[in-house]
Amino acid sequence: MKYFVTGGAGFIGSNMTDRLLSEPENEVVVYDNFSTGRREFLTEATRNPRFTLIEGDTLNLERLTKSMEGCDFVFHFAANADVRMGLEHPKKDLEQNTIATFNVLEAMRANGIKRIGFSSTGSVYGEAEVIPTPEDAPFPVQTSLYAASKLACEGLLAAYAEGYDFKVYIFRFVSLLGERYTHGHVFDFCKSLKKDPKHLHILGNGRQRKSYIYIKDCLEAILTVVRNCDEKVNIYNLGTDDYCEVNDSVGWISEKLGVSPKLTYAGGERGWIGDNPFIYLDTKKVRSLGWETKYTIRDGVEKTVEWLTENEWVFNVRD
Amino acid sequence: MKYFVTGGAGFIGSNMTDRLLSEPENEVVVYDNFSTGRREFLTEATRNPRFTLIEGDTLNLERLTKSMEGCDFVFHFAANADVRMGLEHPKKDLEQNTIATFNVLEAMRANGIKRIGFSSTGSVYGEAEVIPTPEDAPFPVQTSLYAASKLACEGLLAAYAEGYDFKVYIFRFVSLLGERYTHGHVFDFCKSLKKDPKHLHILGNGRQRKSYIYIKDCLEAILTVVRNCDEKVNIYNLGTDDYCEVNDSVGWISEKLGVSPKLTYAGGERGWIGDNPFIYLDTKKVRSLGWETKYTIRDGVEKTVEWLTENEWVFNVRD
Repeated sequence: MKYFVTGGAGFIGSNMTDRLLSEPENEVVVYDNFSTGRREFLTEATRNPRFTLIEGDTLNLERLTKSMEGCDFVFHFAANADVRMGLEHPKKDLEQNTIATFNVLEAMRANGIKRIGFSSTGSVYGEAEVIPTPEDAPFPVQTSLYAASKLACEGLLAAYAEGYDFKVYIFRFVSLLGERYTHGHVFDFCKSLKKDPKHLHILGNGRQRKSYIYIKDCLEAILTVVRNCDEKVNIYNLGTDDYCEVNDSVGWISEKLGVSPKLTYAGGERGWIGDNPFIYLDTKKVRSLGWETKYTIRDGVEKTVEWLTENEWVFNVRD
Repeated sequence: MKYFVTGGAGFIGSNMTDRLLSEPENEVVVYDNFSTGRREFLTEATRNPRFTLIEGDTLNLERLTKSMEGCDFVFHFAANADVRMGLEHPKKDLEQNTIATFNVLEAMRANGIKRIGFSSTGSVYGEAEVIPTPEDAPFPVQTSLYAASKLACEGLLAAYAEGYDFKVYIFRFVSLLGERYTHGHVFDFCKSLKKDPKHLHILGNGRQRKSYIYIKDCLEAILTVVRNCDEKVNIYNLGTDDYCEVNDSVGWISEKLGVSPKLTYAGGERGWIGDNPFIYLDTKKVRSLGWETKYTIRDGVEKTVEWLTENEWVFNVRD
């Protein structure tokens, strides 16, 4: 099977690339513009003869279409993943998520490729009334440009499934953890503690509850769904059946790093405007396929800290 | 109050323009690119000194922003409303609905305008499991590019409400009927019967159930919501608490026109791919504000037929 992975130099994309290449029957074409993706994440893949790297932008439909030629399945992970800064540049989510996804679908249509796996987000549930939130929760109201753009992408995928006979796989994640993750609170906290191990400033009140999933669990869930489900539109929550508070995570990180910072809090229930105080997804649907998490949230936090400690260069990268 | 009406030369837009101008305290600026809008629909408005017409495209952000200057409230009705042909030009819904709506919001932000009324659609519920469908129905799966793009717009509006302190009014309509409606089955059937009164070909099996709302009822509902609701995000279904089958409507049209066509059917439950066999919305929420319909579906069909009979020129317009 020949996979096309957009955003393949990013966190999810590069991990998926390595995972797919670990199976001898697979080939992988990575398409990435390296705006946030890192060549370093593809070091291992690059040594593999079944791997091809194409530098390109999802907004370049012509190049995207040409690059996709001969592939069987598309994983579309390229996205603007910076939820927090959406309000400073609202066009970014529109272009890099909504329009880029449209381009991916059009490139697929031009190439006769009909199956796509897509990284959506648990944020599409807005401030969910039902927690843990199932896939068929009440029609949500969006609270961030990021989630709104991911919802727009979901709609496009579903409409292509209905109209052009695609099979689409939509994954609504909780936050992720793991090797190569260069966003999120674990990254921010480790970076801050590396500079100043005696002090840590926390957005919000630290009581924000968050559920996380470790990248390797996440990849197995995605492959389980993609390889076992055959509906036109397959929508699955991915998450751990557990959650923690930001303060728990701060404790695990500090312990792992062997530091005891003094904590200060910005206060408030939300880390930032549009931050959701609690995303906790009902994952019965994906677990009914036989998949289960092998790592706890604490495992995921610790593995992230370990990787960051071994790869401090990532703290100096500006994206 | 100075209203800015995009798509103001269209069906809903021109009717809303006349309705707003009927109140002496209002001014209206219509912004329309006349791609489907008609100058004839603004004949009355044009005579009013409180009316301004600007020919412009919602994809032209600069012109849009400049044109909106000094307005207090935006009604955004400009859209690609051709649901059926979405699959032939998928980019149209993306550009004319999603991107255009983003531009409208950005133009508002640049002008410090914070209130917007938006025409969404009952199609965003996809093939609803709960019928009549309430605003908080289970998270739907999209079935058309049109509805997917309208859902994308809804998401943008809600995110702007949350992030930029907008007040947004989202209306999910059933199909509309009334003067100046130049789409939909009544228009198609009248046009066909005018050419050949002895024969009528019907897409689907004629048993498709459809709920309709007459434009004047619709406008009053919109104004009731906009003038009485003050949430950040106000989402309202608009419809008649009733429905008919396409065959009923064919009977009413034929009777009104005094013809007895032989009916043939394309067959199937759907008129076309992505056509929803039954959109029937729960309108308790808007009715709780004191609004109610004054016209039945049959009234609406008949008024549409009357207007078409008096304005046969519209049959010769290609858009």
